[in-house]
Amino acid sequence: MRTHTVTAFDSELKSLNGGIEEMGSRTIAQIDGAVDALVNGRVEVAQDVIAGDRALDELQQRVEAAAVEIIAKRQPVASDLREVVTAMRIASDLERIGDLAKNVAKRSIAIGASATTFKVPAGLGSLAERVRAQLAAVLAANRAGNDAEALAVWRADSAIDALHTSLFREMLTYMMEDPRSIGLGTHLLFCAKNLERMGDHATNIAETVHYRLTSEFIASERPKGDLSSDVRPKADG
Amino acid sequence: MRTHTVTAFDSELKSLNGGIEEMGSRTIAQIDGAVDALVNGRVEVAQDVIAGDRALDELQQRVEAAAVEIIAKRQPVASDLREVVTAMRIASDLERIGDLAKNVAKRSIAIGASATTFKVPAGLGSLAERVRAQLAAVLAANRAGNDAEALAVWRADSAIDALHTSLFREMLTYMMEDPRSIGLGTHLLFCAKNLERMGDHATNIAETVHYRLTSEFIASERPKGDLSSDVRPKADG
Repeated sequence: MRTHTVTAFDSELKSLNGGIEEMGSRTIAQIDGAVDALVNGRVEVAQDVIAGDRALDELQQRVEAAAVEIIAKRQPVASDLREVVTAMRIASDLERIGDLAKNVAKRSIAIGASATTFKVPAGLGSLAERVRAQLAAVLAANRAGNDAEALAVWRADSAIDALHTSLFREMLTYMMEDPRSIGLGTHLLFCAKNLERMGDHATNIAETVHYRLTSEFIASERPKGDLSSDVRPKADG
Repeated sequence: MRTHTVTAFDSELKSLNGGIEEMGSRTIAQIDGAVDALVNGRVEVAQDVIAGDRALDELQQRVEAAAVEIIAKRQPVASDLREVVTAMRIASDLERIGDLAKNVAKRSIAIGASATTFKVPAGLGSLAERVRAQLAAVLAANRAGNDAEALAVWRADSAIDALHTSLFREMLTYMMEDPRSIGLGTHLLFCAKNLERMGDHATNIAETVHYRLTSEFIASERPKGDLSSDVRPKADG
């Protein structure tokens, strides 16, 4: 049981974790904004997401600087050291998710500008919902120090990948049926890919949390669900 | 002028930089392999690239662990600390470039399997050539401690972005003219995007080298050349 003695290290660690918390909630808000902008064609929301990315970049720099300072000043070892190092890694993954959300927001503006009859496939909304849930779950697992929850997130990534591959095929079919939709369809393919990659970063975070709690790397290969890079083009088949 | 006294810190730093050197040459080899596989349809080269990615991941983990150990043990400050922290950042960017090369290799297999009459646009080769040159140049700038060279790489990224945007439009046009090429074309769009993102990582490294040498962040916004996320679809226009 934890005593009431708060050391300088504890207090610095708490501040470090506060930075991760703030990054986490901002990142989830950025995903929500980007998807709202895409699905509902809301340009002003997209612009907020684009402008809001800088705050995430700055937060990441602050977390990294704080972590380095703690390592140098306190020379932590074992689980204390892992906690500091993993905070840096998680901040890096959250920052990349923010970049991907910003890219979705930019594409939503490009799409919205010329597409009046445009409809985003329902699968894209489901994909976004799952990615968001995975990220929220892995951040909760990190907060609670719950390894089982982190592993559950890790395993569930294959469902996101499968959803992405199926959505990818569906959108390709639309594009083939109506070549006028190719420009739009391409933006949507990249948006879907960005969401799938956010899921990969959530999986990275799950691996990081597992390492933090157990000092072990997940030995097995990542469950493989995303086959969109392997989809054989039918054209010349 | 540097004295001949080699401290433990110097020797550890040298080993850390050796890790970056090894990652750098391996990453460039992975890019070369992936582009060879894509342009010349060489499946066995693609498989080597896919298998070779793990070595890069492991090298990155080793660089990170070594950097953390140096910070804890030596408590470096000022330029010494910056050198250690930036080694970690550069390793992270190189590892991501490796992931992108692996993805290009995977796509080259998917493309090659069904495309007998397939021809990769010449622009894709030029794009790859420039990205590779940027990466080699920024690693040389890091090695030599040459800020001017790092800044030159940073500025030149807009040329890569412009090349990518133009290639993107060209490929979209092909796809619209011949909808049977949509599957193939999509893989090529993602390959081109992966190359452009490798260029972004080279730019990240340029910023990191500048920070290492001057302790300053590059204040101005990144030169904006990649407008592919903003390309307005013509379909419903």
